Amino acid sequence: MSPRFDTILLTGAAGRLGTHLRRGLAPLARRLRVSDRTEIADLQPNEEAVLCDLADADAVLEMTRGVDAIVHFGGAPLETSWQTILDANIRGSYNIYEGARKNGVRRVVYASSVHAIGYHKVEDHIDTNASHRPDSLYGVSKCFVEDLSRLYWDKFGIETVCCRIFSSFDQYTDRRMLWSMLTFDDCVRLVEASLTAPRVAHSIIYGTSNNRHKMVDNSLAGHIGFEPQDSTEPHRAEVEARLPPADPDAPAARHLGGWFVNLGHPDDEQKT
Amino acid sequence: MSPRFDTILLTGAAGRLGTHLRRGLAPLARRLRVSDRTEIADLQPNEEAVLCDLADADAVLEMTRGVDAIVHFGGAPLETSWQTILDANIRGSYNIYEGARKNGVRRVVYASSVHAIGYHKVEDHIDTNASHRPDSLYGVSKCFVEDLSRLYWDKFGIETVCCRIFSSFDQYTDRRMLWSMLTFDDCVRLVEASLTAPRVAHSIIYGTSNNRHKMVDNSLAGHIGFEPQDSTEPHRAEVEARLPPADPDAPAARHLGGWFVNLGHPDDEQKT
Amino acid sequence: MSPRFDTILLTGAAGRLGTHLRRGLAPLARRLRVSDRTEIADLQPNEEAVLCDLADADAVLEMTRGVDAIVHFGGAPLETSWQTILDANIRGSYNIYEGARKNGVRRVVYASSVHAIGYHKVEDHIDTNASHRPDSLYGVSKCFVEDLSRLYWDKFGIETVCCRIFSSFDQYTDRRMLWSMLTFDDCVRLVEASLTAPRVAHSIIYGTSNNRHKMVDNSLAGHIGFEPQDSTEPHRAEVEARLPPADPDAPAARHLGGWFVNLGHPDDEQKT
Amino acid sequence: MSPRFDTILLTGAAGRLGTHLRRGLAPLARRLRVSDRTEIADLQPNEEAVLCDLADADAVLEMTRGVDAIVHFGGAPLETSWQTILDANIRGSYNIYEGARKNGVRRVVYASSVHAIGYHKVEDHIDTNASHRPDSLYGVSKCFVEDLSRLYWDKFGIETVCCRIFSSFDQYTDRRMLWSMLTFDDCVRLVEASLTAPRVAHSIIYGTSNNRHKMVDNSLAGHIGFEPQDSTEPHRAEVEARLPPADPDAPAARHLGGWFVNLGHPDDEQKT
Amino acid sequence: MSPRFDTILLTGAAGRLGTHLRRGLAPLARRLRVSDRTEIADLQPNEEAVLCDLADADAVLEMTRGVDAIVHFGGAPLETSWQTILDANIRGSYNIYEGARKNGVRRVVYASSVHAIGYHKVEDHIDTNASHRPDSLYGVSKCFVEDLSRLYWDKFGIETVCCRIFSSFDQYTDRRMLWSMLTFDDCVRLVEASLTAPRVAHSIIYGTSNNRHKMVDNSLAGHIGFEPQDSTEPHRAEVEARLPPADPDAPAARHLGGWFVNLGHPDDEQKT
Amino acid sequence: MSPRFDTILLTGAAGRLGTHLRRGLAPLARRLRVSDRTEIADLQPNEEAVLCDLADADAVLEMTRGVDAIVHFGGAPLETSWQTILDANIRGSYNIYEGARKNGVRRVVYASSVHAIGYHKVEDHIDTNASHRPDSLYGVSKCFVEDLSRLYWDKFGIETVCCRIFSSFDQYTDRRMLWSMLTFDDCVRLVEASLTAPRVAHSIIYGTSNNRHKMVDNSLAGHIGFEPQDSTEPHRAEVEARLPPADPDAPAARHLGGWFVNLGHPDDEQKT
Repeated sequence: MSPRFDTILLTGAAGRLGTHLRRGLAPLARRLRVSDRTEIADLQPNEEAVLCDLADADAVLEMTRGVDAIVHFGGAPLETSWQTILDANIRGSYNIYEGARKNGVRRVVYASSVHAIGYHKVEDHIDTNASHRPDSLYGVSKCFVEDLSRLYWDKFGIETVCCRIFSSFDQYTDRRMLWSMLTFDDCVRLVEASLTAPRVAHSIIYGTSNNRHKMVDNSLAGHIGFEPQDSTEPHRAEVEARLPPADPDAPAARHLGGWFVNLGHPDDEQKT
Repeated sequence: MSPRFDTILLTGAAGRLGTHLRRGLAPLARRLRVSDRTEIADLQPNEEAVLCDLADADAVLEMTRGVDAIVHFGGAPLETSWQTILDANIRGSYNIYEGARKNGVRRVVYASSVHAIGYHKVEDHIDTNASHRPDSLYGVSKCFVEDLSRLYWDKFGIETVCCRIFSSFDQYTDRRMLWSMLTFDDCVRLVEASLTAPRVAHSIIYGTSNNRHKMVDNSLAGHIGFEPQDSTEPHRAEVEARLPPADPDAPAARHLGGWFVNLGHPDDEQKT
Repeated sequence: MSPRFDTILLTGAAGRLGTHLRRGLAPLARRLRVSDRTEIADLQPNEEAVLCDLADADAVLEMTRGVDAIVHFGGAPLETSWQTILDANIRGSYNIYEGARKNGVRRVVYASSVHAIGYHKVEDHIDTNASHRPDSLYGVSKCFVEDLSRLYWDKFGIETVCCRIFSSFDQYTDRRMLWSMLTFDDCVRLVEASLTAPRVAHSIIYGTSNNRHKMVDNSLAGHIGFEPQDSTEPHRAEVEARLPPADPDAPAARHLGGWFVNLGHPDDEQKT
Repeated sequence: MSPRFDTILLTGAAGRLGTHLRRGLAPLARRLRVSDRTEIADLQPNEEAVLCDLADADAVLEMTRGVDAIVHFGGAPLETSWQTILDANIRGSYNIYEGARKNGVRRVVYASSVHAIGYHKVEDHIDTNASHRPDSLYGVSKCFVEDLSRLYWDKFGIETVCCRIFSSFDQYTDRRMLWSMLTFDDCVRLVEASLTAPRVAHSIIYGTSNNRHKMVDNSLAGHIGFEPQDSTEPHRAEVEARLPPADPDAPAARHLGGWFVNLGHPDDEQKT
Repeated sequence: MSPRFDTILLTGAAGRLGTHLRRGLAPLARRLRVSDRTEIADLQPNEEAVLCDLADADAVLEMTRGVDAIVHFGGAPLETSWQTILDANIRGSYNIYEGARKNGVRRVVYASSVHAIGYHKVEDHIDTNASHRPDSLYGVSKCFVEDLSRLYWDKFGIETVCCRIFSSFDQYTDRRMLWSMLTFDDCVRLVEASLTAPRVAHSIIYGTSNNRHKMVDNSLAGHIGFEPQDSTEPHRAEVEARLPPADPDAPAARHLGGWFVNLGHPDDEQKT
Repeated sequence: MSPRFDTILLTGAAGRLGTHLRRGLAPLARRLRVSDRTEIADLQPNEEAVLCDLADADAVLEMTRGVDAIVHFGGAPLETSWQTILDANIRGSYNIYEGARKNGVRRVVYASSVHAIGYHKVEDHIDTNASHRPDSLYGVSKCFVEDLSRLYWDKFGIETVCCRIFSSFDQYTDRRMLWSMLTFDDCVRLVEASLTAPRVAHSIIYGTSNNRHKMVDNSLAGHIGFEPQDSTEPHRAEVEARLPPADPDAPAARHLGGWFVNLGHPDDEQKT
């Protein structure tokens, strides 16, 4: 059987998750156009590399030409200065959606984040209709793209799945990751499901593996067909032996966003 | 152990689902009274056939005598002329409930349909409390019986489970069935659960198998104890190879009712 | 200023409410087509009478020709035999909607009833999204038309306001009317608002005056612009002196539908 | 690996569930302080027994000293006289929370009960936010401790998980237990989860095994990480053969609290 | 016209609100039985005084004999020691409900308090279904009576209105009272409405005047028919000139319960 | 009595609403700092003018020094090019919040807009918790500031009221304004209420006058104390005589955002 898509564009392809997605999405498309600001290593035969700064509207317009779907994982992946957030995440994502609109791309899968709703409490069990409560400028930029993509669906008919990824790393650096982790394999499953679901309209979905402690409610995202297969339980003993428990009422334990709620303003920190 | 029921009446027994229910319900009752407008083939020793037009009140009153429970799957199974809907589905079901009331039948399992709520959107993830939004005259008749049976519970103490069956066929004729299908075996499980749950009062439950893409929310029906065992995933590759994808924003892909929302008025069509 | 409508059709024009609506709607249309099964007295110059049985599809089709809006108050106004409910309310209303569809009528105002939701409890404070819980066959027929009109909106673009009238009489016959009454003047205001609101789509609205005790929640109907001006308080002293209080936990006091919940099945009663 | 807790206090340790918890909690703490009004049999090396009447504030203050967590299963386990409820459940639990506050205990796991919400209906599928609807004085005392512990969280920062246990017995004495049973092993899992979850704040969780018929909704308790492993299905055939079905509309079948709703006032019964 | 009730019992009649209720309820009953722990001044011809400690079950049983309705405003009106709360509010209210049950009293109006839900936030706009979040032992005792009265309704058919009074004083001692005040006249209106509504079942209602800033939602209490007539606006200028504004994020400004959330544990304070 | 504030900063002071706010806010502060990109006419003795481009971070930081509260009505007031939206609304508002944070301003009143939720339907009656559904780039920028201000509340303790103004003009240019209008006087009342409410935390409130047709639900904003005094009804006859009705199902009549949903992408239009 031929792959479902002719060409998928993957932004942020040189990043941590991008590397795993390159491998994971390969079977879905005849050609994977992989893009980042930096050179991409180990280019595969099915891949086509584009060196591109997302803040460059013309370059993005060019890059999105001839594409069936966009997996948009590019941009700053962490709290950083306002100027970087503005350029890489806000202007960059705007350019992606303009490219999609002008080039007739029908579906985008966007790497949103828990930090768009990081100030909600763990025990509130929010679903995907919960109000935005960003915990950082980074989180504000994720909210911006969620709102922008809503407009591009309602007005221009471009479907988007906003995947609010919690934690997707290769190491456990605090106990919170025991409930927040999305394994790389489950991340691939999440993007694959978002690309292939029969209808996504404008959808939001939380991205964690099938971990024991479930802090959020994905029941409004059943139409995506995401079924995580992994769990962090096999790592519990090792992690709990190595890392101390958090005070259950410390801000970072109380809120979904974890230690992001403890961060000060990034521009203050730059000055020190 | 003796079967749970002495006599169950099954209407629509000659139909597609009726045939499977005859087999599936056999262990539940000493005797299965099987009824349809047309002759029923291959009558089994535990079965008792009644040839009956549901629009005939006296015949239905007679047929419901001495019955412990009714599995009401009779009537027109698809969009058709108003006169047929009125006779077979509206008057016919009224006659069934009057028969139940006069003959002291305590529980009815009714074949309602996704078409009672077909205009809700796929991504709305309605639960069983959602408002009626029929997509056809057929759907309106399903709403009618849901409302009628609510009265017969509130006023006359007759329990009903309204099973809103999505698609239950032996062939996949469009990709939508990959999420809407209720296999025949799961259909039997659904009716068996509805008959044997300790208390159903007046309940509504969605009928699909345990498919990958979940468009509706059955969490308010947990007291029925329906646990579908099948999934359409084994058929995905074959179906997707054979049948084209739908535009995700076409009316039939947007709404739960599928292609029923595209149908014109049946009486117009009769005239052509 | 010329009236907003050229021709409004009013069914049930010879009835209790019809009589008040003839007067109240006169300023809204150049011509009022007034229809009933019986002769209409005191025909006014702006009125055009049509003697019509709603169960006669051809007659209704004729009657709805050239009409801008329909105020559908015809049909059986109380619990009665199934056959009458079926003919006058179910088939009759179907004929009205078919007439509207074939003749291009854009908006219908329908006299629904508290009896469509009569089994909800007084203290539940349901809003207009509450599930149907009819308290009578009459109530089931009101549910039917609410569902049918939903289809005619979703599929055929005909707007309807379903006015769930509580009690609209010229005498207080029990204390319940102190909270359930819709004065005739407020009934006219309700229909006028339903006809003239900028957009009604398919809406449900509860019809009581601005009485002291508020049992239901109309906040989802604010787009209709109905502002009742009357209250039953001026009648309280007289009514309470004349009529005994109900036991607060008697079925008729417990449920919105009042004494309808005490009625047996109408066809049983006919036989005695 | 060393156990997670140094000392856990278990009240009601001589009771039915206490006996199973002694065994089940042993791996979690270096030392288990086991308390009851009556002597505790078979004291284990890791256990430390305290004979204590919960109504004795000084004794409870002493008993809660040096404790990391409290598993509070003590008090009257069934409907009984007001005086006993007042002393054992209301005053006794107040003393426990005062002991926790004065001794700096950070988390309590409390044996609440279905009888705190016993008058909700089976088909209402309440979640853990549902209003209190106690079915007995016993149930009222469970509501009291749920409210008291909410205060001790909001004001004094002591976390509590209120486990609303349905039925946890070693025999099936009615068919209701087929849906209400929490096996002893699942009870241990529930308490273990409540003790070890990263953050519980003030939480309520329903305690049944993973039975076929699901009457309540635990989705707001996902942060506890309770995953029942048992089901009553293996017992169904035996139980249904031995015990008669209940009328689905009998009060004890209609309400979550079961036969508690049939009980009169306990002080009346004492007099007979 | 004769008064609606023969005999109403008012507890707490010597208190601040009791004094106003004696005057306000006089027209409703032929006889007002007024009770308190202390002597009641200025006894009126329609009044009958009972000196009674609510903790004395026999005395309360005697006092509730021959009574049509109880307005239960007795007990400790503020945060105080646990022993006083237990005796005056918990045992005292239990005695009242037992008196009502044994003597066939059909309706109770209970002085609950904002302090039963004092830890909810001002901007949460809770309605009367919100979970208990008491801010004091006093508040816990209010929760207890709300739960107890729910049982006495569900099981014994005694109606109760729980009036969650915010602030009802004759002086403004902080700016919060500008939104929390229930004037004495509105307090009388609230009790009068609760006594005379056609059906109250078990209801909760918030008690403030019609003040400008509305922190809670009374829409589920419309069946009580309480229409406050007063507002604090005429006092604003004087109060704001005299009393300083609170920091909007101080605990007492953040939560509905006001300064009660700042109180420590009353038994600690007694010791200092 | 001295005014409540020493210095209020008003941005957008030369705009349509700014002009009315200069007059309306005068009594609230000793000094009004009025700012815009263009010269402000008729400077009053209580006013201090600042010519400032909001995109200039240093200028905004300077302008927000010594200010007690900010009324932020500056920025592009209509759909316009992405670059203008980015500079004037996104960067400009970020600069305002940074100014507030660095200068210790405690409360901001922000001119959000119906266009932040413009794709919700008229009959959906959304409240202020509804998801963002912007209808334009302008609307997306309003969403951005709502999200940004949420962060500045949760993390930095700066209160904001987001006033979602519908239409506030001096002329009626379509019939929609009959329900969407906020008169200038009511706009002043809305801002005054937002500035003086005892606690606003982070709040959203809809801004229309007390018009007949109510499309949105402000009940979650009761703590703001906004009580509109005007209505559009006096203008109805004139407006309806002058301006044609809209088709009730035209996109601009269907959605809250009105004709903004019909706009194409602004950057496309610039090119024609």
